[in-house]
Amino acid sequence: MRDFSADHRWLSLNTATVRKQGDLAHIIEACARHGIRAIDPWRDQVGAIGLDRAVRAVRDAGLELSGYCRGGMFVADAAHRIEVRDDNRRAVDEAKALGAPCLVLVVGGLPQYSRPGSAASKDIAGARAQVHDAIAEMLEYARQAKMPLAIEPLHPAYAADRACVNTTKQALDICDALDPKRGGALGVALDVYHIWWDPELLPQIARAGKDRLLAFHVCDWLVPTKDILNGRGMMGDGVIDIRSVRRAVEAQAFDGYCEIEIFSNTWWEKPIDEVLQTCIARHRSVV
Amino acid sequence: MRDFSADHRWLSLNTATVRKQGDLAHIIEACARHGIRAIDPWRDQVGAIGLDRAVRAVRDAGLELSGYCRGGMFVADAAHRIEVRDDNRRAVDEAKALGAPCLVLVVGGLPQYSRPGSAASKDIAGARAQVHDAIAEMLEYARQAKMPLAIEPLHPAYAADRACVNTTKQALDICDALDPKRGGALGVALDVYHIWWDPELLPQIARAGKDRLLAFHVCDWLVPTKDILNGRGMMGDGVIDIRSVRRAVEAQAFDGYCEIEIFSNTWWEKPIDEVLQTCIARHRSVV
Repeated sequence: MRDFSADHRWLSLNTATVRKQGDLAHIIEACARHGIRAIDPWRDQVGAIGLDRAVRAVRDAGLELSGYCRGGMFVADAAHRIEVRDDNRRAVDEAKALGAPCLVLVVGGLPQYSRPGSAASKDIAGARAQVHDAIAEMLEYARQAKMPLAIEPLHPAYAADRACVNTTKQALDICDALDPKRGGALGVALDVYHIWWDPELLPQIARAGKDRLLAFHVCDWLVPTKDILNGRGMMGDGVIDIRSVRRAVEAQAFDGYCEIEIFSNTWWEKPIDEVLQTCIARHRSVV
Repeated sequence: MRDFSADHRWLSLNTATVRKQGDLAHIIEACARHGIRAIDPWRDQVGAIGLDRAVRAVRDAGLELSGYCRGGMFVADAAHRIEVRDDNRRAVDEAKALGAPCLVLVVGGLPQYSRPGSAASKDIAGARAQVHDAIAEMLEYARQAKMPLAIEPLHPAYAADRACVNTTKQALDICDALDPKRGGALGVALDVYHIWWDPELLPQIARAGKDRLLAFHVCDWLVPTKDILNGRGMMGDGVIDIRSVRRAVEAQAFDGYCEIEIFSNTWWEKPIDEVLQTCIARHRSVV
């Protein structure tokens, strides 16, 4: 297991962590100031300053990407399916332009939340079937672009409104069905927040193996959780045994960035330098 | 599948649904007024009016019980283990006195939340091992009392603070390990709120079979969920396809009560008659 205590070489910042503090250019400057070597930007943040400017800012700062957030939201009624497909193809193109190693997929829950305007449904099994088919279609495009897709299982608390892939097993089942030869085109993005509770987590991480482990995200689960979407914790402030999950991932020879992604009304209110200093300290002491 | 549209013969009220509107005696009177035939009372509600008075009130109203809430909270540090054991034995005795068909078990999460005062831990695997051992011990006592134990898997959002048994599969694995002959002493209490998201739900219900299906609870999952503990919805107001779950349970010949259990700041503020009228209407139209 890598020793993170002496530096933050393997820290990546998911830029949603400081999305309220400034635009992507501002965040990139702050990362440079704090010696952070990698980021995972969100599409809306890239769009807000323009893709070309984002590409230049990343390059000029010498940053790497640990992923690009996000494609997905595949579940939709028939009237929205072309929109879904084209939107996801654009996400692949943007990820490629930015030099991302993978595009993270948040697959969508029920159609009325995944693609607003879609006819409402309570059919979660149907949603899951649609996700499977949509990833199969998207994979063709992504393969041609040589952009790996990282399916992110989301906590079951988001099953209705964000993602109906809720366990590592489910995500890996899709990977095995669509990419049985493990060609590197399809894998998972594992975030401790979403998976820490899963009694099957450790065997599923072993099942994933290095070639399916495309991204690893950290934050913490607070008790009580006051806001299920935007009440995530800084590493060390909650109940997740983060290091044991990292140990399992690294036992599969994962050697990429540990990406910090914290959606938190509390941390969004703090100055960006304080947030980044805390992230670095906790990366070294807790992750 | 039973037709609930014409009456509410198979409606049971979990008395936590109206816990803020009055004491257990008051709730029992309201149930009688509305022709509700069964309840599942909570230990604190029984304790507040005294066990003897609760037993008489249930008997005088001609009510059945669909369960008794709740035993469990097994996870604790060594200093609290005798307390845990004795507390759970008292719960069995109370359930027996009240004529409950089963004692519902909410198993506890991490020790600092399960039994406050216990030393803090992040070891959820350890918590799960403790739950297994504690149920094994409790089962001896419950068997002698002829009181079936119903393990309730709780939504993964409660893994830290309420229950580290988070899927139907996990609960059934414990049942199969401790009661391999399916003697009726151990089973599960399934609440749609906790299990609706689970991709393995239908096969696990089939695995449970009639002899493990000791209780069936309904409410709904709201989007957005503003309070993860006390933001549950009235059946029909959320995203759960309740009837498809009931169909699966009844396909295993489950023929017991459909128990309504809604923890809701919204519904706790309404008059008890309005809540019960709405429960009855939704039982007939949605459950």
